[in-house]
Amino acid sequence: MEDKYVIGIDLGGTKISGAVANFKGDVVSQYTLPTKAEEGEKAVLERIITVVEEVIKESNVDKEKIVSIGIGSPGPLDAKEGKIITTPNLPFKNFNIVKPLVDKFHIPTYLDNDANVAAIGEYVFGAGKGTNNMVFITVSTGIGGGAILNGKIYRGNTCNALEIGHMTLEKKGPRCNCGNYGCAEALASGTAIAKAARKQVEKGLSTSLSSYEKITAYEVFKEAEKGDKLAKNILNEALNYLGICVANIITSFDPEMVIIGGGVSKGGDIVFEKVNEVVKTRCFKAMWESTKIVPAALGTDAGVKGAVALAIMESK
Amino acid sequence: MEDKYVIGIDLGGTKISGAVANFKGDVVSQYTLPTKAEEGEKAVLERIITVVEEVIKESNVDKEKIVSIGIGSPGPLDAKEGKIITTPNLPFKNFNIVKPLVDKFHIPTYLDNDANVAAIGEYVFGAGKGTNNMVFITVSTGIGGGAILNGKIYRGNTCNALEIGHMTLEKKGPRCNCGNYGCAEALASGTAIAKAARKQVEKGLSTSLSSYEKITAYEVFKEAEKGDKLAKNILNEALNYLGICVANIITSFDPEMVIIGGGVSKGGDIVFEKVNEVVKTRCFKAMWESTKIVPAALGTDAGVKGAVALAIMESK
Repeated sequence: MEDKYVIGIDLGGTKISGAVANFKGDVVSQYTLPTKAEEGEKAVLERIITVVEEVIKESNVDKEKIVSIGIGSPGPLDAKEGKIITTPNLPFKNFNIVKPLVDKFHIPTYLDNDANVAAIGEYVFGAGKGTNNMVFITVSTGIGGGAILNGKIYRGNTCNALEIGHMTLEKKGPRCNCGNYGCAEALASGTAIAKAARKQVEKGLSTSLSSYEKITAYEVFKEAEKGDKLAKNILNEALNYLGICVANIITSFDPEMVIIGGGVSKGGDIVFEKVNEVVKTRCFKAMWESTKIVPAALGTDAGVKGAVALAIMESK
Repeated sequence: MEDKYVIGIDLGGTKISGAVANFKGDVVSQYTLPTKAEEGEKAVLERIITVVEEVIKESNVDKEKIVSIGIGSPGPLDAKEGKIITTPNLPFKNFNIVKPLVDKFHIPTYLDNDANVAAIGEYVFGAGKGTNNMVFITVSTGIGGGAILNGKIYRGNTCNALEIGHMTLEKKGPRCNCGNYGCAEALASGTAIAKAARKQVEKGLSTSLSSYEKITAYEVFKEAEKGDKLAKNILNEALNYLGICVANIITSFDPEMVIIGGGVSKGGDIVFEKVNEVVKTRCFKAMWESTKIVPAALGTDAGVKGAVALAIMESK
């Protein structure tokens, strides 16, 4: 595989980023275009094709040496069929995105959702390198996940495996966007943290958070660090639920590693200390002793790196 | 594989049952001895060896045609190492049960825990036949499970995957035997149902359950069926938690099928109706629509059949 290359495409609501990389993940060229989702399916597909063409051209790599294309996209989607079912920030509805690319470039092309692509990225290039079983969790506005089991991405029956944001943790908990009550996402996501804080501020409780015009999870972390009691309590409650979510994942999957990414994971020590503390009280000793809980290693280019990793993994 | 055979051994606290079967699962001979665990490791190992010898002899199958031995045992155990770590009703402590059998019979031998063996049994011969991803749950005195993912048993990193009885469903719920609070097992097992009923009877509440000297989950199901309000409430609460447990499994594993076995599953329609109702309110539509929730198909000989299935699966 020394002289073989892949293409990774990160399909996002604002931009389409592409990269040509070798099997070690060394990026030899990158190219980005705005998505302009409002222009519709055909226009966005054309821009994806342009990104692929340009990134090949800029790489100076012989096209014959490019063995696969990986695409990461928001879901829900059908990875097996290569079809984007629907997604809020892209124009594709039940749209097979793989077929037109294969027709055009004659290179095997693979699609997967954001969370799975991030999991594969961490497995191939990031914190999960060398493991055999690992679960990736992203905690930001929502909570999602992906798992590598026995060295392969695990997608489940409908490509919805690891929808762990919608694990019920509190049977009469707050209502979630999905319609259920007490989902992990409604209790421990960045959105949930911000919502809880705003609710308390509106009640007129004494907190340094009331000085902000707009409160997001970021402000809650900031004020908790400075010692604000209310901010600390809100975080403690949310991170307790995140800990239970991680504990339930460990109890179910018995992985070597749980990797936490997304905005909330940037909260640092307070996040990982609390999650570890909860996991230790709630999981079997043999399991928490053998499961490392670590932050994601890939940074801002996780999307493209993950798509490259998907392309590599699928062509092995 | 038409003229090949396997041996399945079900190692239990009261008896050791063995069978020789072909790859279709047709049993050609069976042999059983009492375990007599009190006689210690060496004596019990000798009896396992006798069961293997006798079951081969009675089968009239040429030993050369027997390609593998599968052993199902209570855990915790290390399936990869073939070692029983400890178990309340057997004398083995950190005991490699596979090695002496391989040394004696020169037949590849595989060990796995009860719940995994039951899952494999359902996958190969039972309700899960033809699926690719399925989760088996046993709900009796405790709650355990096993999963077939991408057509293979999924054991996890420490052979403890699917310890779903210890998934936290209620952060301040009743204390579980494992030390944690609010585990599925402490809320929805047969033991939990019986305990909740006895507590209510002791309070002197009006219920037909107070006429029993000893209350187990069986009596609670019986009186609920006859219309006793308290018994119905207790069941409703426990089965709601079982439903949440199943919903969380579906959300995590996205399986084609969830198979429920064990004593509580014998409760019949009331169990499956409630679990389905909860799953429908708590899971994504795409997931509950595609996941069948069914009772286990293998009956009293599930242990031996499962061990046979383990032997078949491992030798493929």
